[in-house]
Amino acid sequence: MGFEESEEQLLSKVATNGGHGEKSSYFDGWKAHDRDPYHPTENPEGVIQMGLAENRLSHDLMEKWIRKNPAAASICTEEGISQFRAVANFQDYHGLPLFREGVAKLMEKVRGGRVKFDPDRIVMSGGATGAQETLAFCLANPGDAFLIPVPYYPAFDRDFCWRTRARLLPIHCHSSNNFNITSSALEAAYLNAQKSNIRVKGVLITNPSNPLGTTMDERTIRTLLSFTNNKRIHLICDEIFSGTVFKPPHFISLSEIVESDPEFDRDLVHVVYSLSKDLGLPGFRVGVIYSYNDEVVACARKMSSFGLVSSQTQHLLGSMLADEEFTSNYLAENARRLKERHGVFTDGLRRVGIRCLEGNGGLFCWMDLRSLLKKATLEGELELWRVIVNEVKLNVSPGSSFHCAEPGWFRVCFANMDDETTERALRRIRLFVNGEIEEVEEKKAKKKKNRLAEGLRLSLPRRFEEEMVMTPRLMTSPHSPLVPATI
Amino acid sequence: MGFEESEEQLLSKVATNGGHGEKSSYFDGWKAHDRDPYHPTENPEGVIQMGLAENRLSHDLMEKWIRKNPAAASICTEEGISQFRAVANFQDYHGLPLFREGVAKLMEKVRGGRVKFDPDRIVMSGGATGAQETLAFCLANPGDAFLIPVPYYPAFDRDFCWRTRARLLPIHCHSSNNFNITSSALEAAYLNAQKSNIRVKGVLITNPSNPLGTTMDERTIRTLLSFTNNKRIHLICDEIFSGTVFKPPHFISLSEIVESDPEFDRDLVHVVYSLSKDLGLPGFRVGVIYSYNDEVVACARKMSSFGLVSSQTQHLLGSMLADEEFTSNYLAENARRLKERHGVFTDGLRRVGIRCLEGNGGLFCWMDLRSLLKKATLEGELELWRVIVNEVKLNVSPGSSFHCAEPGWFRVCFANMDDETTERALRRIRLFVNGEIEEVEEKKAKKKKNRLAEGLRLSLPRRFEEEMVMTPRLMTSPHSPLVPATI
Repeated sequence: MGFEESEEQLLSKVATNGGHGEKSSYFDGWKAHDRDPYHPTENPEGVIQMGLAENRLSHDLMEKWIRKNPAAASICTEEGISQFRAVANFQDYHGLPLFREGVAKLMEKVRGGRVKFDPDRIVMSGGATGAQETLAFCLANPGDAFLIPVPYYPAFDRDFCWRTRARLLPIHCHSSNNFNITSSALEAAYLNAQKSNIRVKGVLITNPSNPLGTTMDERTIRTLLSFTNNKRIHLICDEIFSGTVFKPPHFISLSEIVESDPEFDRDLVHVVYSLSKDLGLPGFRVGVIYSYNDEVVACARKMSSFGLVSSQTQHLLGSMLADEEFTSNYLAENARRLKERHGVFTDGLRRVGIRCLEGNGGLFCWMDLRSLLKKATLEGELELWRVIVNEVKLNVSPGSSFHCAEPGWFRVCFANMDDETTERALRRIRLFVNGEIEEVEEKKAKKKKNRLAEGLRLSLPRRFEEEMVMTPRLMTSPHSPLVPATI
Repeated sequence: MGFEESEEQLLSKVATNGGHGEKSSYFDGWKAHDRDPYHPTENPEGVIQMGLAENRLSHDLMEKWIRKNPAAASICTEEGISQFRAVANFQDYHGLPLFREGVAKLMEKVRGGRVKFDPDRIVMSGGATGAQETLAFCLANPGDAFLIPVPYYPAFDRDFCWRTRARLLPIHCHSSNNFNITSSALEAAYLNAQKSNIRVKGVLITNPSNPLGTTMDERTIRTLLSFTNNKRIHLICDEIFSGTVFKPPHFISLSEIVESDPEFDRDLVHVVYSLSKDLGLPGFRVGVIYSYNDEVVACARKMSSFGLVSSQTQHLLGSMLADEEFTSNYLAENARRLKERHGVFTDGLRRVGIRCLEGNGGLFCWMDLRSLLKKATLEGELELWRVIVNEVKLNVSPGSSFHCAEPGWFRVCFANMDDETTERALRRIRLFVNGEIEEVEEKKAKKKKNRLAEGLRLSLPRRFEEEMVMTPRLMTSPHSPLVPATI
């Protein structure tokens, strides 16, 4: 043999190094929900899923369009089946022209028509998940780093780093400044990398921010562009929530600034988009890379062979997005519904004294529970989180799973449920804050406390402590509980 | 900065190292076709595509099923739309149970019911392309190698090696032995790797073979299993053409041997499957990994986030494959049609003195044109190939693009066209072999020669020589000609 045998050596380092990042409270919360999912009639005491940034508010609009357009919508209707074989055979990695044109038009519309997108620069990928990995493969060698403002989306570690072996290094943002990205924070992050002899290849941001639910102002975008331009490094902007902005200030895209100012080198600018959030279609796995760099477009397109969008799905969406009256109405109505839901939810929280960071987009709030912490530490945050998941029965995501350094912040999703479930979730929060949670939810008589006033005084039942230690068996078995692929 | 600036350094090594392998005569042939595609009425003198292993013979059977099952087939019909939102939201990386069960059942049926597949071991990937890469990421570190019998599918270099930086090392097979894999060839390949200090992690095979169109006998499969088992290395078997076997001997799958013999360690065995060939649905991007190793199943499933199958497509195929009467009829009728086409095509070739390796599966023949070579060298093969592509106007693929060491073999696909085009292709071949090609196809008067008798005596027009050198611009531009993602 010449090599020692061991199970680890049978598989690769990637397979065995834990870089997937599934051992995170972010994913553990999903598993807690999967073990005991809330259902209004069948399991009304179950865990309500508020850890999933899904948009379920506007599917009826799409269903209506599909019903009205049986020939265009599907290759599986009597009216559309003449297209079946051509579409089933279509495997060109450029994608159906109709699809690329539709996505480009939608991206323009989301940006208020203030910017144009060239369909020939639209590169397909398997969701935004695949788009992030593709860009990392195109831009970074193993060991190279991208700077990223914290807090950030937990699965970026998987998407951007796992198989590429690139790194993400934090740009520290603080609540005192509403988590804005500052010039000095950027410079400090860059300097830190240099001190550690790590090559920085770019900056990765989300706008609207996941998890903050805020949009970036023009000045911050310009700061980022100047910084990356001066350093000759890339700027990747993930704009997958751009169509969810539901109140002012309006969404300003990276493209808008780049196109208005010739000073910025376009070869360094790359945008990630997806239809999972804005249209609420995560199952369809539509991710898109829009790069201004010709070589990146060409290389990413070759890589798209690993994650092409099903031609059946391209056909449906291409047809739907070609109907501009539909997309205009959809975007307006979807924003109206998101605004309403956001209002109901944040009002409900405010009534029990819980505030969120002021947001105007996304499918979640960045909820401030610092006053509920027993200890202002990471452990204190996780302790509170376990109570919320296991006793209040709400799966929210702790800030630490987003790499947030300040304990006490939680991301809570509000668009993946109906009105009734929203009310139920708010009721549970109210009861919890008022110290009544056990009586109502667990039907036990315990003394009441106002936790907001007195701070958290709960000891965790042992069974929860045990469950939170995920066993290796659970993590690796093909029979492990269902875990959605991406938020 | 601390680093030198250069365009190359702006991008990654993966992006700039040419590892995608697009600069191959295999892909160049596709481009020649794309520039001048044959059409029966609009471009009857154009290039006929025989470099694409597509199955277009049986779509009518699927269309009939879809018409009969409007509720099950689609979430976009009046009958099926009640499922729309649930399916559009479905993002569990285990896949729809119906889909996994359907694929498992199909795999069983293709193997004559002699083996069972566990739906919980079915892992989705973006086509077989994604499946190969996923397995390479799971099993090999950068620099590690898999042994592979030559000739082999050109895009394996992209799929298995490009981003993973794994390697493929040849197991030499020869026409004298009908390109069979022998024990001594396996040992020699392994020894070669050891001499070069390269760690061998496994063997990668295709059965039925692409490009040979042959199936493997039980003895060869046992030889491979014993070899990999003794060395404690993996065996990956790509069985994406298993449902195309159209005449005896019947297909024997790796699974059949592994399950019948407890001597073999199942943790080392992995199968790749896809619906692109057997069902003729490459546009739907359905690839599957079936591993007998629990850890590989778990890891590959996590990686499947980068290439999940659209839930819309899962739903359609899950419904269709649940209808076992349909799949039984489809497989039988598809095999009958493939057999008929194969017969017509190989008979036509035989009539002008061209023989193929005796095959019983796949969507192509391995055609022996050694007697037409001017020189029995790689250059002689490419010279003949350019004539066939540019003057005979048939895009066939030269053996050298499959890493075949013996010049003069060509892969020629026969199932991606209708009867009329097949006849047209055979007529061109006949005219070419009889030395009449210029008069008919280019309407020029040139002296006739029987090339088969006299050997090739053509000088290439300069424009073709120039065109065959692909310019960097063409390779990298977002406006490059359409190139399908996979054969």
